[in-house]
Amino acid sequence: MITTPDYRALLETAIAEARQGLAEGGIPIGAALYHNDGRLLGCGHNRRIQEDDPSIHGETDAFRKAGRQRGYRDTIMVTTLAPCWYCSGLVRQFNIGTVVVGESVSFPGGIDWLRENGVKVIDLNDAGCIEMMGRYIAEHPDVWNEDIGE
Amino acid sequence: MITTPDYRALLETAIAEARQGLAEGGIPIGAALYHNDGRLLGCGHNRRIQEDDPSIHGETDAFRKAGRQRGYRDTIMVTTLAPCWYCSGLVRQFNIGTVVVGESVSFPGGIDWLRENGVKVIDLNDAGCIEMMGRYIAEHPDVWNEDIGE
Repeated sequence: MITTPDYRALLETAIAEARQGLAEGGIPIGAALYHNDGRLLGCGHNRRIQEDDPSIHGETDAFRKAGRQRGYRDTIMVTTLAPCWYCSGLVRQFNIGTVVVGESVSFPGGIDWLRENGVKVIDLNDAGCIEMMGRYIAEHPDVWNEDIGE
Repeated sequence: MITTPDYRALLETAIAEARQGLAEGGIPIGAALYHNDGRLLGCGHNRRIQEDDPSIHGETDAFRKAGRQRGYRDTIMVTTLAPCWYCSGLVRQFNIGTVVVGESVSFPGGIDWLRENGVKVIDLNDAGCIEMMGRYIAEHPDVWNEDIGE
């Protein structure tokens, strides 16, 4: 039997990571890398502020924590916010098959480009994610602009 | 006086990193992030093998080691090999102004895409870089294919 993953359930893992980041004083973006079969391979969150490290975005942290995988075609990158170019490039380079985003209202990222290049992108347009990110950007515009290189 | 950076001199830093990676048993790809004024901000090399970490490409390592910067428009990412999509995405996201590649024969990466998006790309077509990477790919095709997600 082929079942469709419950994308909203997977998003909860990414949201929990984002909330942890916020509690640490960081930018609330979380991500999780799942296998299509439901196994969680790795999860993480943006830690630019916490570790003074601009290379740790939610998606790159989840990817790193998953360790070396034989391939990524059957994996799902779940993230609270549409991936930036850095993280979209990660998805394309490693041929991650599916990307699930909590929202793309606060930031559209590279999701159209990913779709054009054969990645299945599911945008859950989640009200909680939109609220969390929107509030953070409004309260910390300088941190957010630094995070996206502007 | 406006001077043009000596790109071949900058490439030597990336080549030294690549050689160090090779000596460690890793993939010989090195990178360095320079400021336009000649200051070295950070350098690094691919450490997938050494640290079992697929997120450490030469460019991401150099970027990370440079720490948080106020902006990247006046920086130069120098790398022994044309950047993959992951690293090209990094360049685009953070608005790194210039990319210098040792070569793009072994792997074209995203350099055309970067040029289309306003990044200045200089391809030095360096015989030493071509030889080093070509030999590694010929001797370790499995490692290389994993590195680029194939």
